[in-house]
Amino acid sequence: MNHQARLQSLQQTVESKKLDGLLISHPPNLRYLCGFTGSTGALLVNSGESVFFTDGRYTEQANAEVRDAKIAIGRKAPLTAAAEWVERRGRGKRSRVIGVEGEYLTVAARHRLADALPKHIRLREAPPLVEQARMVKDAEEVEAIRAAVAAGARLFDRALEVIRPGVREIEVAAEMEYAARRAGADAMSFETIIASGARSALPHGRASEAVIGSGFVVCDFGVILHGYCSDRTRTVYVGSAPGEARQFYATVLAAQEAALAEVGPGVSVGRVDRAARKVLQGKGLAKHFTHSTGHGVGLEIHEAPRVAKGQQEVLRPGMVITIEPGVYLPGKWGVRIEDMVAVTERGCEVLNSTHKEFIVI
Amino acid sequence: MNHQARLQSLQQTVESKKLDGLLISHPPNLRYLCGFTGSTGALLVNSGESVFFTDGRYTEQANAEVRDAKIAIGRKAPLTAAAEWVERRGRGKRSRVIGVEGEYLTVAARHRLADALPKHIRLREAPPLVEQARMVKDAEEVEAIRAAVAAGARLFDRALEVIRPGVREIEVAAEMEYAARRAGADAMSFETIIASGARSALPHGRASEAVIGSGFVVCDFGVILHGYCSDRTRTVYVGSAPGEARQFYATVLAAQEAALAEVGPGVSVGRVDRAARKVLQGKGLAKHFTHSTGHGVGLEIHEAPRVAKGQQEVLRPGMVITIEPGVYLPGKWGVRIEDMVAVTERGCEVLNSTHKEFIVI
Repeated sequence: MNHQARLQSLQQTVESKKLDGLLISHPPNLRYLCGFTGSTGALLVNSGESVFFTDGRYTEQANAEVRDAKIAIGRKAPLTAAAEWVERRGRGKRSRVIGVEGEYLTVAARHRLADALPKHIRLREAPPLVEQARMVKDAEEVEAIRAAVAAGARLFDRALEVIRPGVREIEVAAEMEYAARRAGADAMSFETIIASGARSALPHGRASEAVIGSGFVVCDFGVILHGYCSDRTRTVYVGSAPGEARQFYATVLAAQEAALAEVGPGVSVGRVDRAARKVLQGKGLAKHFTHSTGHGVGLEIHEAPRVAKGQQEVLRPGMVITIEPGVYLPGKWGVRIEDMVAVTERGCEVLNSTHKEFIVI
Repeated sequence: MNHQARLQSLQQTVESKKLDGLLISHPPNLRYLCGFTGSTGALLVNSGESVFFTDGRYTEQANAEVRDAKIAIGRKAPLTAAAEWVERRGRGKRSRVIGVEGEYLTVAARHRLADALPKHIRLREAPPLVEQARMVKDAEEVEAIRAAVAAGARLFDRALEVIRPGVREIEVAAEMEYAARRAGADAMSFETIIASGARSALPHGRASEAVIGSGFVVCDFGVILHGYCSDRTRTVYVGSAPGEARQFYATVLAAQEAALAEVGPGVSVGRVDRAARKVLQGKGLAKHFTHSTGHGVGLEIHEAPRVAKGQQEVLRPGMVITIEPGVYLPGKWGVRIEDMVAVTERGCEVLNSTHKEFIVI
């Protein structure tokens, strides 16, 4: 990954925002900017240079991974070490403003940071500059995501071999996660959802001890491969499916396809969301679609943009989002269908498109 | 779990701190106080009542899990919904102060919260009241942790069957994680560390594609079972072990045993840490012990107290901590040995104690 270009671009943005520096500690942002994959570090991006701070547990890892920033190993917490570095550099200088990550820095950490800085150096909540940069993936990142999606997609083949009446949801998850690890995944990108029967009406129905019987089974799963996440949902029916279940599934699929059809450069995410809702409105099901249509995916499983009602963000080539409408009838059943899609110059590419026919087991 | 007693106790603490309410959104704290296991919610603890806020995705789950607080399902983010609830209740009332979780609430979320509140309701960073309560586990929690530790310990038996020269670290992790899921674990409590050869000198050497050869293999792993975490480290030697490796291992084990021997009610965590360091100092290895001796474990894999140099917290019956000294010679090797231990009325109990002899594979 081209960390040098990312750091240089951020340095320019930091200058244009009239900041004397930007202090980053959100791990995915650290990884994006300087390659560090550990959980504890801080990166100070100045106009002149970038300095990465971590502690003794990460000495070897920092030396191995961080290439385009100076490395400072300290005994103190990385943010405090960064503040002390700024303080040493700032002696007798004019007043300065350091930007911080408002969406990640805690209130307590901000206090500690301010306490470690002299009065003439102030902190300011910066806009989500790194998140905005991360929204548009470069070719290397899209390739990494494509590989993660391909690895993730294969887990569903394994699920189809395992899902049977009498099998516990957690056993299905176990087999999928085992297949993921054997395929080289760093980890799952979130807790695997296997939600069967009435549990399929839980949008976040993590695999439980529940035994699969007759009805829908929502499978929502993803892997992290070389740092990049995949996210996919497929819903199958176990047992003899009534016509009502087939129609219900077909409606959700139509909503998903309608949203996918909207995705392209220049289109607002709100319009993509609306396309899914409109199909469901036509069937009186819109009120049971209780979440947003999708979200960005990359180094994090949920990142910008939110593909939700009223959101203004306009899609650009290189953005990667999920399209995942779901409809839930509490106590009865639920269906969700999800793909990841990359925005291209001319339209979009559904990543690792596989069939979405109604599957009966 | 007795959520009612926990909420009542917290209500008293909130009153004693002169707060008109405490707003909680850190998921483990929510689970501890009201049983909600989802990722998005807010709990307002007043002297009179407790109200739990979440959004439509969690309606069913909140109704199923939350027993001793009123449930409010909103369209807005839970913290905003809580602020609006406070605002409605607070009309025309005297000025009031609501406590927030400084260590978890982000700077941006605090701004949004303050913006949603009328001027006469102020926010104040509260001490970590819930974390302090969580430090001392009740009998039911110790039992849950004991079950998690027992499930976690069995993974090492699986690791011993798999670790062989030529096997990739990630394959060992895959087999352990599969066994964990089959045993009913919710998830792993952190990314499994399998660090072989020179990688054993990385304190946080997550399982990689590296092929196991001759040398130490650090295995640090844990599960989450019914919400409670386990954490254990064992280090084995693959190949013909030189005497130097055996001595090195014996020194780390002596440090671990020395720290374990200190654990008991009334003892400061700093003294426990010192006991481990003293053994290593005697062998000139203290400077290669680059992290703290341990940490609390419960609903989170890392929670209070920190068992570290200079820490003042005094151990009390019901506290559960790890004891995990490690010594790392960069580029050469590392050894870490870790157990979880519960403080009892008379001393301590090493949870699921298993042998720590030098193992050669």
